[in-house]
Order: sequence, then structure tokens, then C-alpha cells
Amino acid sequence: MTHPLRVAVLGATGRMGAQTCAALEAADGLELVARVGRGEDVGAAVRAARADVAVDFTVPAATEANVHAVLDAGAHAVVGTTGWDDDSRRRVAEHLGRLNAARGVAEPDLGVLIAPNFGLSAVLAMTFAARAARYFESAEVVELHHPDKVDAPSGTARHTAAAIARARAEAGLGPMPDATEAGIEARGADVDGVRVHAVRLRGLVAHEEILFGNVGEQLVIRQDSFDRVSFMPGVLLAVREVGSRPGLTVGLENVLDLS
Amino acid sequence: MTHPLRVAVLGATGRMGAQTCAALEAADGLELVARVGRGEDVGAAVRAARADVAVDFTVPAATEANVHAVLDAGAHAVVGTTGWDDDSRRRVAEHLGRLNAARGVAEPDLGVLIAPNFGLSAVLAMTFAARAARYFESAEVVELHHPDKVDAPSGTARHTAAAIARARAEAGLGPMPDATEAGIEARGADVDGVRVHAVRLRGLVAHEEILFGNVGEQLVIRQDSFDRVSFMPGVLLAVREVGSRPGLTVGLENVLDLS
Amino acid sequence: MTHPLRVAVLGATGRMGAQTCAALEAADGLELVARVGRGEDVGAAVRAARADVAVDFTVPAATEANVHAVLDAGAHAVVGTTGWDDDSRRRVAEHLGRLNAARGVAEPDLGVLIAPNFGLSAVLAMTFAARAARYFESAEVVELHHPDKVDAPSGTARHTAAAIARARAEAGLGPMPDATEAGIEARGADVDGVRVHAVRLRGLVAHEEILFGNVGEQLVIRQDSFDRVSFMPGVLLAVREVGSRPGLTVGLENVLDLS
Amino acid sequence: MTHPLRVAVLGATGRMGAQTCAALEAADGLELVARVGRGEDVGAAVRAARADVAVDFTVPAATEANVHAVLDAGAHAVVGTTGWDDDSRRRVAEHLGRLNAARGVAEPDLGVLIAPNFGLSAVLAMTFAARAARYFESAEVVELHHPDKVDAPSGTARHTAAAIARARAEAGLGPMPDATEAGIEARGADVDGVRVHAVRLRGLVAHEEILFGNVGEQLVIRQDSFDRVSFMPGVLLAVREVGSRPGLTVGLENVLDLS
Repeated sequence: MTHPLRVAVLGATGRMGAQTCAALEAADGLELVARVGRGEDVGAAVRAARADVAVDFTVPAATEANVHAVLDAGAHAVVGTTGWDDDSRRRVAEHLGRLNAARGVAEPDLGVLIAPNFGLSAVLAMTFAARAARYFESAEVVELHHPDKVDAPSGTARHTAAAIARARAEAGLGPMPDATEAGIEARGADVDGVRVHAVRLRGLVAHEEILFGNVGEQLVIRQDSFDRVSFMPGVLLAVREVGSRPGLTVGLENVLDLS
Repeated sequence: MTHPLRVAVLGATGRMGAQTCAALEAADGLELVARVGRGEDVGAAVRAARADVAVDFTVPAATEANVHAVLDAGAHAVVGTTGWDDDSRRRVAEHLGRLNAARGVAEPDLGVLIAPNFGLSAVLAMTFAARAARYFESAEVVELHHPDKVDAPSGTARHTAAAIARARAEAGLGPMPDATEAGIEARGADVDGVRVHAVRLRGLVAHEEILFGNVGEQLVIRQDSFDRVSFMPGVLLAVREVGSRPGLTVGLENVLDLS
Repeated sequence: MTHPLRVAVLGATGRMGAQTCAALEAADGLELVARVGRGEDVGAAVRAARADVAVDFTVPAATEANVHAVLDAGAHAVVGTTGWDDDSRRRVAEHLGRLNAARGVAEPDLGVLIAPNFGLSAVLAMTFAARAARYFESAEVVELHHPDKVDAPSGTARHTAAAIARARAEAGLGPMPDATEAGIEARGADVDGVRVHAVRLRGLVAHEEILFGNVGEQLVIRQDSFDRVSFMPGVLLAVREVGSRPGLTVGLENVLDLS
Repeated sequence: MTHPLRVAVLGATGRMGAQTCAALEAADGLELVARVGRGEDVGAAVRAARADVAVDFTVPAATEANVHAVLDAGAHAVVGTTGWDDDSRRRVAEHLGRLNAARGVAEPDLGVLIAPNFGLSAVLAMTFAARAARYFESAEVVELHHPDKVDAPSGTARHTAAAIARARAEAGLGPMPDATEAGIEARGADVDGVRVHAVRLRGLVAHEEILFGNVGEQLVIRQDSFDRVSFMPGVLLAVREVGSRPGLTVGLENVLDLS
């Protein structure tokens, strides 16, 4: 890269936004060129700063409009805000299609990366679990979190279990063996036929363990997120990669090189 | 010990009984003097063999009568058969009381040890968990077994959870923190206020993990039983110790030196 | 598949060979057509049985000659015997090249799969570890085995560490952080810059744990081989896949679908 | 307790001292009555505050003199500062002996508790490991820390291994089985015959895992210290208990109720 990538942060005063600003300032080859706070005109700010990429850590109510404004300002977008659904994602994909068709030959196509999770260990655990699933007779998921969490099981655990179920179905595997007759309430939640257990323990943050079993062997993939700061390597990776992925990409795993 | 302890095995042709015979033959200071099979007269066999101790691995329908016969034959008993309840235990305790009151001064008092579990790692895990419980804000139990098990959670996990609950109550601790509002079915079974999760995985045998948490720290006690042969050290220990514990003792933990 | 695949087992009376025969007899779509013992003429036996695939679980001194004989008999080979080096592998690859060039258009090309490890959990752990390596600042390997093992660290752990080191080098990562000044002997063996620790514990069989760390997060990949029978799913998979991989393939990971 | 216990903190501006002040202010039944900083007259400060207990989190060069001054001021002492040896401990024990002999019948005897580790999970792990040790054929210790740690293995791991070795010797156990012929450098440090492995991984803080094995079974005791704040429950417990332990006590485990 001959010159540093110019990066704007939307939601710069929030917890994740502030951490992203700090991470950008410490990173090689990346330059923080705008901290955009609540109420500012996103498109104007991105244009004024001549940003190549904008990172959105704002709020569900603002994130879609922000992304459209970033694209109209000619920048790529990396999105960590929650609240996206099929409709909002489709609208962004269509916007990208129109813009990229109209861009000149000298301009690179625009890209948007929406990532529900920037934790490398979490994303890798989920990806490896999906790939391993077809090779094992049994698979279960245990997620462990601090006891102040209000929902169970965690979204990450649900996604992991759904991906395992999908991989098993594609490989033609049937239901897992389970002779339980009494005490089914100890067997966790059923997510697409995969059992998911939620542990709540003071002292923990966010952890996931995926267990696979065959006769005579076990494979366990475990990931621990001790601190929100662990998301920064994933955010920086996304910022660096988004420019080479035209169109809409959902999930950090799609910018990882796992071949 | 000046002469080897003479040991009879009841249920010698069953799986556990046969393994006990093999373990006795390989052990120092212990002599296998009788293999008693189904249908034989237990009292006569124990007397004929001049056994000091009889080990019962028979069936629930036979075990209580066996123990009374062993005691009448003047031997100590170690019992691994299931099926005991408060009434049958009380009858053995009363029998021991009568016999020991009548024994001469030169005769040692008789003892009976009934152990639901001879696995040292399982018994130690449960004992340590009960002792640790009062020092932590949170505690949960995860048990993992092969998928052919019909009941959940395991008896060992239930006992562990109940012991944790008792220790918390004695120490004046209230309920554990748990903000779960949605998805309670992922939170496992509630055993006296302690959450117990049951994992079923091909390749596993019998495993238990007890997790304790405080702000900033975690203690995990895990035990793995890979093979039934792991019960033999506990059986031999019980055989060696039962003679020095007059009366009825329930639970291998009571013959362990854990001070 | 319209007709069952015909499979010969070389070394059929050895431990792994006998287990392979049993697994073949229980498998769908595979037919055990020859059990070849020590001293028999491998080529003649494979020809007489009209085997499609021969599985070699013999001894280092015999395995290369066996593979050449299998190929001359027109069958694919799956090899689990150790003792292969660069030279013997090159000779097999050349043999395959000559034979496949001469085969008629209606005949499928011949394949040989040499696998140092048929354990799916072990192979997956190693593969995932290599792929994860570039995304973490730190990586270490802990292998755990029964105490009768004479060498440390295990071959699997060495391969895993070497693959991690290679992936780090390719990604341009430097040495891992390690401020240790005193007590370096507690830091394990250095395999290409990756620390490998060997635990020896009665009761264990063969286990490996690979730990990755970034600021605020950890990824752990663990695999447990409790029993040699766990190799059978990998052997059957290799038997099924070898016919569609012309030429020489080394490593079960290359017949797994991990994309 | 009819009135709150009055507590002074020595080293109140240091990291541990400040955290102790905060924990005392949040605790029931304890009153923070003095924050003593570097250079202040400890005895005068303790007397002026009429402290019942003084907690010392200062520096090795000051801690012994502080304790003598606290005792002369008539208060109990809880000490978390390192740097104590046999001589300094003996001098404190003698001082306590003289003072307690001279105290009036209405005055409770003075106590000093020196604790190398206030982490409940760490102290419990070490204590349980020592108690379990006699019942297993094999035992090893793995400690895991952040990579900025300069010494290996950790003091906690050394103490744990030494306690295991002592318990094995008392029970008459011989050396553990270990057939390693090649690659001994992967087998960790030898602490009194117990192998200790040190893992250094970015993202970790301070963790210890103690593994015990018999034929067919395993017991694992693991403790994680994610944050220094985890020491506070142990400090508060020590403050509450020191007044009922006359004389010198070394080790938090001696004020825990683990029967």
C-alpha cells in the first residue's frame, strides 16, 4: 500500500467507536481522518475527510441510513452495529449494484461488510465448527456468559448450532443419537436439532465451547472473549479487506483466508 | 499388616465382580479367598473361606440379604450394588449395632461400607465441590455422558448439585445471580437452585465438570471416567479401610483422608 | 455407487488390520474381499480378489513393496503404516505417473493415499490450527499421553507446531511474545519457534490441545483419542475417496471437504 | 458482630491498597478508618485511627517493620506484601508471643496472617490438589500466564507441585510412571519430581491446571484469575478472620473452612 488508508469512525464517542479510534491510531497503514458523532451529517463528514472507509458503530436506528450516506460519499463501509434484517441488507446490496455499475473504470468498486461479530476467536470457532460438523456423529454447544445476560442461549451459540445443523443436513446425516427418556430439561435448548446449553457464572465474560464426538474420539473447539478490546484485530482486518470485496459481504469469516 | 486380608467377592461372575477379583489378585496385602456366584449360600461361603471382608457386586434384589448374611458370618462388607434406601440402610445399621454389642473384647467391631460410586476422581470432585461452594457467588454443574444413557442429569451430577446447594444454605448464601429473561430452557435443570446441564456425545463415557465463579476468577473441577476399571482403586481402598470403620458408613468419601 | 467397492486388507491379522476388516464388514457400500497376512504374495492376492482398493496396515519394512505390488495389480492403495520418507514417496509417485499414463481411457487413474493419522479429530485439529495460526499473536501446543510413551513431544504435536510456524511465516508474523528470563525449562520444547509441552498421565490415551491468544481473547482446539477404534471412520473415508484422487496424496486432510 | 471492625490500609495509594480501600468501603461490617501512605508513621496512624486490623500492601523493604509497628499499636495484621522469609516470619512470631503473653485477660490475643495469595480459586485449587495427590498414580501441573511474565514456572505452580510431592511422599508413593526416553525438554520443569509446564499466551492473565490420573480416570482442577479484583473476597475474609487466629498464620487456606 503506497499511502495509508483513510478511515472515518461513525459513533466515535460510543464505547466501540472510541476503542476503534484508539486502535486505528495505533495501527500501521491506517489513518484516522474523522471522528463522527451523533447528529453530524455523515455524508458531509466522510466527503470532507476524503475517507476511503467508514466504520459504523452507531445505533440500530441510524446504521442503515449511515451506510447509504457513506456509499453516496464514495467510501466503503464496515458495520458493527446490530439491527440489520433481510430487507435492510437487500436495500444496501441494490444501492451497491447501482453505484458500482455507474462508477468509472479507474474507480474501484465499493464494498460493504456487515459483521455481527468481530471477535476472531468467535468467528473462527463458528467457522471451524461448521466445517467439522459433517464428520461427527454427535455435536453439542455450550455457551458461558456473565450472569447479567438476559437472553439464552447467546446469538453466537444459536448461529453456531444452526450452521452445524445445516452442514449435517447437507452431508445427509440424520438426527444425533440421544436415548434420553427422563430429565429432558437438563438437555438444553434445541436449535435445529442441536442441543445448546447456557451457563451463567460470575467472573466470566463471553465463551463458547463446541463438542463433537465419534466412537473413541472427541473434538472440542473453545473460544474465550475476555474483553471487548478483543474485537479490534477483527475490525482492523475488515477495514483493510473491505476495499477488495465489491458489493455486500455479511460475516467476518468471509474476509478471512481459511483455505 | 502381618497377614494378608482375606476377601470374598459376591457376584464374582458379573462384570464388576470379575474385575474386582482380578484387581484383588494383583493387589499387595489382599488375598482373594472366595468367588461367590448367583444362587450360592453367601453366609456359608464366607465362613468356609474365613473371609475378613466380603465385597458385594450383585443385584438390588439380593444385596441387602447378602450383607446381613456376611455380618452373621463375622465379616465386614463393602457394597457397590445399587438399590439401597433409608429403610434397608437402617436395618443394616441396627444389625451392626446388635452384633458389635455382642462381640468379645478381642474381636474388632464389624463395619459395612455402602458406596454409590467407587470412582476416586468422581468422589473427590463431589467432595471438593461441596467444600468450595460457600466461597463462590455462582456455581453450575455440567455432566457429559455417552448418548445411550436414558436419564438426565446423572445421579452423580444431582448429588453434586444438592451438596453445593446445602453448603450454600449453611453458609447463608442466597440464590445465585441470573438475569435470564428469555430462553430459560437453555439453562438446564434446576436441582435445589443449582443449574445442571447434561451433554450427550458419542465417544464419551462419564464425565462431570463443576464451575465456580466470583468477580474476576473461576474454579473448575472436572472428572473423567473413561473406563469401569477406574473403580478398582476405590474398591481396594474400601476393602482395606472397612475394618477400621465400625458400623455403617455410606459414601467412599468417608474413608478418604482429605484433611 | 452401483456396486460395492471391493477392498483388500494387507496386514489383516495385526491390530489395526483386524479392526479395519471388522469396520469394512459393518460398512455400507464396501465389501471386504481379501484378508492378506504376512508372507502372502500381495499382488496375486489383490488380483485374485479383484480388489478395487487395498488398505495397508503392515510394517515399515514391507509397506513400500506392498504399495508397488498393489498398483501393478491395478488397485488403489490406502496406507496407514509408518516408515515412509521423501524417497519412498517419490518412487510411488513416479510409479503412479508411469501406470496412469499407460492406462486406457476407460480405466480410472490410480491413486495412493498415505496417511500418518486416520483420526478425524486429530486431523481436523491440526488443519484448523494451521488455518487459525496467522490470526493470533501467540500459539502453543500441549499434547497429553499415557506414561508408557517413550518419545516426546508426539509426532502429531510436532506436525501441528511446524504447520503453525509455517502459517505464521507465510503471513509475515514475527516471533511470539515471551519475556521468560528464568526457568526456560518449564517452557517446553521449541519446534520451529512454537512451544510444545508434553504431559504424561496414567489414564490418558492420546490428546492434543492447541492454544491461540490475542489481547482479550483465546481460541483452544482440543482433540481426544480415547481408543484406536476412532481411526476407523477415517480409514473408511479414505477407502471411499482414494479412487477419485489420482496420483499420490499424503495426509487425510486432503480428502476432507473443509471449504 | 455488634460494631463494625475498624480497618487501616497500609500502602493505600498502591494498586492493591487502593482496591482494598474500595472493597472495604463496599463491605458490610467493616469500616475503613485509615489510608496510610508511603512515609507516614504506621504505628501512630493505626493508634490514631483506633484500627482493629491493619492490611499491609506495601513493599518488601517496609512490610516487616510495618507489621511490628501494627502489633505494638495493638492491632491485628493481614499481609499481602511479598518478601517474607523464615527469619522475618520467626521474628514476627516471637513478637506475637511476647505481646500476647503480656496482654490482659480482657484483651483478645493478637494475630498476623501472611498470605502469598489471596485468590480464593488459586488457594482452593492448591489445597484440593494437595489433598487429592495421594490417591493418584500420576500428577502434573500446567500454569498459563500472559507472555510478559519473566519467570517460569509461576510461584503458585511451584508451591502446588511441592505440596503434591509432599503428599505423595507422606502416603508412601514412589516416583510417577514416565517412560520418556527422547525429548525430555518437552516434559517441563521437574519440581520435587512433579512435572510443571508453563504456557505463555497473549490474552491470558494467571491460570493453573492440575491433572491427576489413574487407570481409566482423570481429575482436573483448574483455576483462572482474570483480574486482580478477584483477590478482594480473600482479603476481606482474612480481615474478618485474623482476630480469631492468635499468633502467626501463613496462607489463606488456614482461615478457610474446608472440612
